[in-house]
Amino acid sequence: MQNFTFYNPVKIIFGKGTIARLGAEASKAGKHALLVYGGGSIKNNGVYMTVMIALEAAGIAVTEHSGVKPNPVLSHVREGVKKAKEAGCDMVIAAGGGSVIDEAKAIAAGAGYEGDLWDFFLGKDGIKSALPLFTVLTIPATGSEMNSGCVITNEETKQKFSAMSSALFPKASILDPEATMTLPTAQVAYGAVDGLAHLIEGYFSTTDKDVAITDELVHAVARSIITSTDRILTDPKDYNARASMMWSATMALNGMQSLGYGGTSFVNHVIEHSLSAIYDIAHGAGLAIVMPAWFKYDLAKNGPARLEKFGAAVFGAKTAEGTIAAFEEWFGKIGAPTRLSQANIPAEDIPRIAENAMGLIKLWEIAYYQPEIEEILEKAK
Amino acid sequence: MQNFTFYNPVKIIFGKGTIARLGAEASKAGKHALLVYGGGSIKNNGVYMTVMIALEAAGIAVTEHSGVKPNPVLSHVREGVKKAKEAGCDMVIAAGGGSVIDEAKAIAAGAGYEGDLWDFFLGKDGIKSALPLFTVLTIPATGSEMNSGCVITNEETKQKFSAMSSALFPKASILDPEATMTLPTAQVAYGAVDGLAHLIEGYFSTTDKDVAITDELVHAVARSIITSTDRILTDPKDYNARASMMWSATMALNGMQSLGYGGTSFVNHVIEHSLSAIYDIAHGAGLAIVMPAWFKYDLAKNGPARLEKFGAAVFGAKTAEGTIAAFEEWFGKIGAPTRLSQANIPAEDIPRIAENAMGLIKLWEIAYYQPEIEEILEKAK
Repeated sequence: MQNFTFYNPVKIIFGKGTIARLGAEASKAGKHALLVYGGGSIKNNGVYMTVMIALEAAGIAVTEHSGVKPNPVLSHVREGVKKAKEAGCDMVIAAGGGSVIDEAKAIAAGAGYEGDLWDFFLGKDGIKSALPLFTVLTIPATGSEMNSGCVITNEETKQKFSAMSSALFPKASILDPEATMTLPTAQVAYGAVDGLAHLIEGYFSTTDKDVAITDELVHAVARSIITSTDRILTDPKDYNARASMMWSATMALNGMQSLGYGGTSFVNHVIEHSLSAIYDIAHGAGLAIVMPAWFKYDLAKNGPARLEKFGAAVFGAKTAEGTIAAFEEWFGKIGAPTRLSQANIPAEDIPRIAENAMGLIKLWEIAYYQPEIEEILEKAK
Repeated sequence: MQNFTFYNPVKIIFGKGTIARLGAEASKAGKHALLVYGGGSIKNNGVYMTVMIALEAAGIAVTEHSGVKPNPVLSHVREGVKKAKEAGCDMVIAAGGGSVIDEAKAIAAGAGYEGDLWDFFLGKDGIKSALPLFTVLTIPATGSEMNSGCVITNEETKQKFSAMSSALFPKASILDPEATMTLPTAQVAYGAVDGLAHLIEGYFSTTDKDVAITDELVHAVARSIITSTDRILTDPKDYNARASMMWSATMALNGMQSLGYGGTSFVNHVIEHSLSAIYDIAHGAGLAIVMPAWFKYDLAKNGPARLEKFGAAVFGAKTAEGTIAAFEEWFGKIGAPTRLSQANIPAEDIPRIAENAMGLIKLWEIAYYQPEIEEILEKAK
């Protein structure tokens, strides 16, 4: 078990009817919020109205910044920063899924920064301060509501890069499972894939195989994601399954599920970032394509032990190959693609995708070369 | 799944050689520490020396307050408060196990308080502020290093009561598993019992039986405690087992393992508090006596479902009775008593113990009457 530091000061307010508490939380931080949201689904499911009423009751002025896209883009972040500066916002509130929260984090970091905020994502400068951030989560998936990272796509350079800083921890995140009851089936599935992907990155990239407690926690959260998703797809109105899924996805990337592993390569995410940066596919869809291919590569390179352990605990699988098959079968069952062709990505693009992935691999100093990335992608054809 | 709020800002610094980082952490908070510790075991295992060197290097003056007892007593807390006030300490550092940390918390709360600090434990006043607290943990057991509660015994009134406040969260806690390598076997065992006891309180007192994620997490931490303890008792020098146990015991009471259950009665702890308040037995020993008896009472009253689920996941037990037997067998195997008689507590004292327990039961408004407590204790004869 390797040394670690753990620190996560995010206050989680979880459950039915909790969005109304946003006003009381936000009023501790300021008087004027930039409200960041996406394409308007929060206007259909009542979240927008509840947020606005809560903020008005607390005397907080609102400047709106809507239109955040899945795979949020740098140009829209820059617009948000401009709005926040011009309006004199003293806090940022995100209402939506991981894309909305990530964009809100980038805006919060950029609002007080003199330089070019893309420098944060290129590792040229660190985020030392940010506007206070609050989130109202509507899609269980990325875990951004309880961590200090964000992922933004620079659409000009086709780079989907991330930045991290303890200044980006939300002050409070509100998780009301009722806000997820009307999520489309595809988003339920992709959220589940994303949660599982967060769990497997540390578990499989660790060189330290003797971390009993963290292995147990990873298995626990993975099982909960799978059983909860199965229940939701059977009965979308199953509140307890929605609730368990929501908290599970948050737990999957709040920093706790990789402690003692001595670092995480995030190589599956890096490869997927190239898929969604180039083809603008859903992050969860890209991950469902990459993960089984990477498992096959990892099995050949590092042997069956980790796949066997994970598969036995989570799927009841008897072999490493059985574990990979169980992943593919479950992804297929919930409607996620597991091959590039299923997402209409041509196999002849593999060198181009791998070349794109090398940008982040070099930046993060992950020990992979381009031929290895191509080899992994070949297994995803 | 019930609504909840979760907030835990404790910074955990975990691993080999990390005690040296105490100086850098503590110097963020002040210049003069009250150093709280117990009977001197930290002088034998090198922790005292490492702490003193770290604090001296950081320019932090130290006033010592040693002699904390297991089941720490109010009179010694009062002495510590007096010392901290007289010396003008601006922080408290605990080096030891849960008793030391709990006493340090009570001192931190009392140092800036004008009234009688026992009022905090009687619920007559709330803890609004406390001196900044840092901990160096040497016994995995109570979880106090990552929560906001403390338990103190008023030796005059024979009350073992607790207080809680977000002001009591340690700023940082250092967990070096090497500091636990020389722990006596009995303390290893009692720590394991305590960790399991924290897990079962919420799991079994919940009226909401459909909280998949938290059930999974409870099973995960319980399995890790059991397998790690078995490894430690086989090979006391097994670092990875020590490390897994240390983090597991912390995780068992950091607030995460009861989320969604809608509250926790802590009735096993309440009954145990009477045993250790009256007979001064080890907390873990008392819990190993109370838990199987309470399980038998709970089985008769609430049916087998929770015992079956827990036992299947943690022990591979097939029935509720099998789960209780597995607990008793495992407690016996690690050397913990499971009957009052094994701790030399006479059965004729049962009414007196139950009467004592009613103090906390009434204060906390737990739904138990004295005859029920006596019925539970009868099963522990």
